[in-house]
Amino acid sequence: MIESYQKDCQRRVDSALETLFMPPRAELERLFRAMRYSVMNGGKRVRPLLVYAGCQALQGDLGQADGAACAVELIHAYSLVHDDLPAMDDDDLRRGQPTTHKAFDEACAILAGDALQALAFEALSQPSGNPADPTLRLEMFAQLARAAGAAGMVGGQAIDLESVGRRLDQQALETMHRHKTGALIEASVRLGALASGKADALRLEALQTYARAIGLAFQVQDDILDVESDTTTLGKTQGKDQAHDKPTYPALLGLPAAKAYALELRDQAHAALAGFGEAAEPLRQLANFIVERRS
Amino acid sequence: MIESYQKDCQRRVDSALETLFMPPRAELERLFRAMRYSVMNGGKRVRPLLVYAGCQALQGDLGQADGAACAVELIHAYSLVHDDLPAMDDDDLRRGQPTTHKAFDEACAILAGDALQALAFEALSQPSGNPADPTLRLEMFAQLARAAGAAGMVGGQAIDLESVGRRLDQQALETMHRHKTGALIEASVRLGALASGKADALRLEALQTYARAIGLAFQVQDDILDVESDTTTLGKTQGKDQAHDKPTYPALLGLPAAKAYALELRDQAHAALAGFGEAAEPLRQLANFIVERRS
Repeated sequence: MIESYQKDCQRRVDSALETLFMPPRAELERLFRAMRYSVMNGGKRVRPLLVYAGCQALQGDLGQADGAACAVELIHAYSLVHDDLPAMDDDDLRRGQPTTHKAFDEACAILAGDALQALAFEALSQPSGNPADPTLRLEMFAQLARAAGAAGMVGGQAIDLESVGRRLDQQALETMHRHKTGALIEASVRLGALASGKADALRLEALQTYARAIGLAFQVQDDILDVESDTTTLGKTQGKDQAHDKPTYPALLGLPAAKAYALELRDQAHAALAGFGEAAEPLRQLANFIVERRS
Repeated sequence: MIESYQKDCQRRVDSALETLFMPPRAELERLFRAMRYSVMNGGKRVRPLLVYAGCQALQGDLGQADGAACAVELIHAYSLVHDDLPAMDDDDLRRGQPTTHKAFDEACAILAGDALQALAFEALSQPSGNPADPTLRLEMFAQLARAAGAAGMVGGQAIDLESVGRRLDQQALETMHRHKTGALIEASVRLGALASGKADALRLEALQTYARAIGLAFQVQDDILDVESDTTTLGKTQGKDQAHDKPTYPALLGLPAAKAYALELRDQAHAALAGFGEAAEPLRQLANFIVERRS
């Protein structure tokens, strides 16, 4: 069932995203093509799914969550484009396709990433696809800006780069991941909840606990997949973390303990949703999916 | 007098900016240092000045314009960091100092730029330093996102990179500049006007005409300075545009006609402000300053 929910979310956000890449003039055609290439790539759209499922958990109208769903995916997409650059992770392959700087060129990839970030905030500023209440939308802006920036996702990437070749303990590793991937995952659930117009402090807190647990679970599972999967299934170069001597959960805890930890985090996520009824079923199933996925 | 007004604006925005670079944890110290290095560099703060002067032209409270003043400078600063990268303009010197990727490293410069863009939007989302009216602030968000992105500043940089070594006519050159520098300059004046809470369509239109004229004048004068100044006065490598065979106004029109054009644009800027009284005096003097500056 989560597969069909995921497909629905994917279709929904993809059709909203698809409208964003019309170059306003011929001179900008190549830049917009690079932006579109970086986004419309068959991605799993986990973050948009979290937005929609967070909105749905509070029985909100998904039509008010499209802007936020696009915004978090655009932030995610830009971060991948920049992370893949030669000066960063230097990756040639992403989801089985050439990375943006390979398909275009490095300058174009830097600019496409920059433009995607701005576009994320623009998506939140459109009247359609967002809640009407301006105070609510301001709060969503603030949350996204914070999660995307130096105290969130970008900060996580900086910590990650500095930690290559160093021995991190589990706490340091979690700090890195809570920034690098956790911040945007938490923001996705929170933006979805806010977009519903029905969020209160107590339920936001519960959703935050849920999001923190699955954010970490997602990363632990990623590390496990990097060890276990082959390059074709993964759509990126397998064993890359090991080759770069990056700190990972399997390296730190051993593979069996890493797997047990992923399951424990899934259980924490479920526990956080105890007070939610049927409406939170997609969030529950997603927690399962995250630790069961093979790519 | 414009010099003392500029100093006041510079001090005002610098003190607001200075509060933004406190790393929330030790691991992020280097990233925040790179961000701070990229911003707190003695820049002229032309865009913040435009925000304040735009606000003042409508007799607004400058305390409501600090967020916007920081935001436009942060967008400008990030764009310089990324433009200076080896894959882009490949510049080692900026305002007489090593560029961010030289003072830190390339990965750190990419990330610092990314974080500065997010920080710009965060600055607009703070309750203090911005107008209280949430609808107004949403409009400011929308304007900044649009001006900063692919249809604005980033698009202009993309057009610029593609035009190196090509013969552009005056119209194509203006299209490039209206995106690359014009969009953010126009947004600065407009954000200042919006922050005043007293903008109406007619006066926004007049300020837009003003901003378009000085934006272009700024660029024409930049091109002239690239030909005429020496590297020490300019704080960046002189003659760089010529060396890279970039299209410039002096190359296109000849130096005397380029100078005449800058003055014509200044006059257009003054004409647009005819309906404004004393309150628009800083905007008028800035128009003069732009075409008279030597660096």
